[in-house]
Amino acid sequence: MPSPKNAFYAQSGGVTAVINVSAAAIIETARRHPDKIGKVYAGRDGIIGALTEDLIDTSAESPASIAALKHTPAGAFGSCRYKLKGFDKNQAEYERLIEVFKAHDIGYFFYNGGGDSADTCLKVSQLGEKMGYPIQAIHVPKTMDNDLPLTDCCPGFGSVAKYTAVSIREAGFDLRSMCKTSTKVFILEVMGRHAGWTAAAGGLAAEQDGDDPHIILFPEVVFDEAKFLARVQACVDQHDYCTIVASEGIRNAAGKFVADAGTVDAFGHTQLGGVASSLASMIQSQLGLKYHYAIADYLMRAARHVASRTDIEQAYAVGEAAVEMAIAGKGGVMAAIVRQSDEPYTWTIGEAPLDQVANVEKTMPAEFISEDGFHITEACRRYLAPLIAGEDYPPYRNGLPAYARLKNVPAEKKTGRTFTVS
Amino acid sequence: MPSPKNAFYAQSGGVTAVINVSAAAIIETARRHPDKIGKVYAGRDGIIGALTEDLIDTSAESPASIAALKHTPAGAFGSCRYKLKGFDKNQAEYERLIEVFKAHDIGYFFYNGGGDSADTCLKVSQLGEKMGYPIQAIHVPKTMDNDLPLTDCCPGFGSVAKYTAVSIREAGFDLRSMCKTSTKVFILEVMGRHAGWTAAAGGLAAEQDGDDPHIILFPEVVFDEAKFLARVQACVDQHDYCTIVASEGIRNAAGKFVADAGTVDAFGHTQLGGVASSLASMIQSQLGLKYHYAIADYLMRAARHVASRTDIEQAYAVGEAAVEMAIAGKGGVMAAIVRQSDEPYTWTIGEAPLDQVANVEKTMPAEFISEDGFHITEACRRYLAPLIAGEDYPPYRNGLPAYARLKNVPAEKKTGRTFTVS
Repeated sequence: MPSPKNAFYAQSGGVTAVINVSAAAIIETARRHPDKIGKVYAGRDGIIGALTEDLIDTSAESPASIAALKHTPAGAFGSCRYKLKGFDKNQAEYERLIEVFKAHDIGYFFYNGGGDSADTCLKVSQLGEKMGYPIQAIHVPKTMDNDLPLTDCCPGFGSVAKYTAVSIREAGFDLRSMCKTSTKVFILEVMGRHAGWTAAAGGLAAEQDGDDPHIILFPEVVFDEAKFLARVQACVDQHDYCTIVASEGIRNAAGKFVADAGTVDAFGHTQLGGVASSLASMIQSQLGLKYHYAIADYLMRAARHVASRTDIEQAYAVGEAAVEMAIAGKGGVMAAIVRQSDEPYTWTIGEAPLDQVANVEKTMPAEFISEDGFHITEACRRYLAPLIAGEDYPPYRNGLPAYARLKNVPAEKKTGRTFTVS
Repeated sequence: MPSPKNAFYAQSGGVTAVINVSAAAIIETARRHPDKIGKVYAGRDGIIGALTEDLIDTSAESPASIAALKHTPAGAFGSCRYKLKGFDKNQAEYERLIEVFKAHDIGYFFYNGGGDSADTCLKVSQLGEKMGYPIQAIHVPKTMDNDLPLTDCCPGFGSVAKYTAVSIREAGFDLRSMCKTSTKVFILEVMGRHAGWTAAAGGLAAEQDGDDPHIILFPEVVFDEAKFLARVQACVDQHDYCTIVASEGIRNAAGKFVADAGTVDAFGHTQLGGVASSLASMIQSQLGLKYHYAIADYLMRAARHVASRTDIEQAYAVGEAAVEMAIAGKGGVMAAIVRQSDEPYTWTIGEAPLDQVANVEKTMPAEFISEDGFHITEACRRYLAPLIAGEDYPPYRNGLPAYARLKNVPAEKKTGRTFTVS
């Protein structure tokens, strides 16, 4: 009997508080099936590790170290923003992947990422058909933005959602107690380019009339300065203060980002930042109200200390299911979360064809945004609420979360060739 | 036997994650001594509530509601930034205070605030001597800035410190895993005008060589752009990325704030903001490195979800001790935290004379800042470490912290007079 094929696992794109949970699931599940899967090699810095033959031998890590990934945020093996080009555009890259996979006897490819990464995973799944190297490629969803189609939600998002809702609730308590003589308007700027999910999650904190946040600004809604300022003033008139969650990606009627830093990331997305300060300037100059703002930035996607238990359970489930799908002979699919009911929230794992996932961005449906465009609807609340449910604290040492660092032992190089990533 | 005098309690200045813990301690301790203290009235919106005779009757709150304050951030009765002027400058204010105190038979004054508030508390304690209305005024320390003298630390600071250290550790894990192809420099901007304690606390996350944060910028150290940029570049050369905790209050050699928003708060302090973006601009233009930044702002002082257990215990202890001091006939003092040993951290409650506390700002001593000015020393770590020790999570409901809101029933007005706060 031939020895089983090895697996390659990589983390891709922006990391989250729970992407390592999926990593742990993949490694632990593979270890339970030594007759089906040999070693799990992880790409150092994502797919770049495959191209440069910089593979990490995860078999060098103890079960305890792998288990510790479940409470460790960010990417334990390194991630990258690097998208494979089309077969016709950079065939050398695919030839190199095959060279490395062959050298390390890799028959399974687990790719843990978002929409851009699903595209890479899809291309790898086609290596058999297009280039004669059959490989079972399974996508493991991960994105704080919650913008993947064909899955109820994306692991990583539930924890970001919880961070946003907890943060705006806390800031709201602060504002309310100080607004008599101090700050009247508080803005929390959250990450999220085109989809308003991360901002919408702030709306969960508003359980009763008047609760924070009072205003949510979605990228799906055209930003209208006059309407916004009128709403801020009305809110201050009514509640003595106003709390706002603003997505970094909001644009005006001309399609211009309210905050446009003018730089572009490796995937060609405009890099944003500064929505809060733009809004604050309007509020200061037009309404003369004292403001403060916070910018969550990476803190929100790294905040394992306040992660959602549901999110962690789902991050594990998609990793585990991906390995089981591979063992069952599948490929070209994404392990997807399928909602069965809202309350109680029940879900199961299904499969989504990768060609329907790659490069599709799921934005907020119209029925999730209130008619005035400034808040979420009950339907949205029903959708979001279960995703932040439950707590799962990391262990602490010296008053700080005891996050794990792996040894990340490099596997021996076998191709005898270097490859420069363009 | 005459009925016991009533107490007045107010929250003052910027609120914290644990100021309500001191409130709970004062109310619970007073309730245990009904023979010594009658009702506890809370000022709505701080001392302004005393001037406007807007008193909250805390006896209307159930024991469970008062206990819930122990897990609720911000000021449950409202706080304010309002400093009483000198006796000679606005005698009408003091006459009004006496009028209200007399009308409600108030013999105890508990003031929960920072350095500016200690000044108000001192003035109230002198009402007997200067204006013939004897009152026992006890200051209950509270400030996220940790800048009060004569106490080992200030309740509210330990939790801010924990927030800063946890946040920069999490952001550091994020950066480290992405720096190959993404962000090289991350800046966490923290509140803190003149004292670097909140920034210093980030240093606790750096337990081993190379750990985050790599650079700390203190207001006590003159900001030198060239030296800073050289350090950032060296750090990126060595670790592939660089994490920075920057105090909002840093100034250059000319004494100019690196970020100067140009506005001034009610206490006459320059209102700051934008250090992170100033630093990011330097890094971008001089070094060409990709950056991200987060601004913690109010999130850090409201973050009850990640509060320090030590901080909570101390916030309770100073409130309890303040009432016991009052019962023992004392006044004109602050309940202070006295450190007995670093490791294990043992502490007790002492008294500090208010005239030595008011308007004194305790900045970082030179021996707490490393020689190069960019990090904390071992002595600083020994001082700070116990203050973030221990966790104490709030209860959660629907995935969110279940913070309490009191009824805040107004006490019947008795003076028959209104008073306009200038």
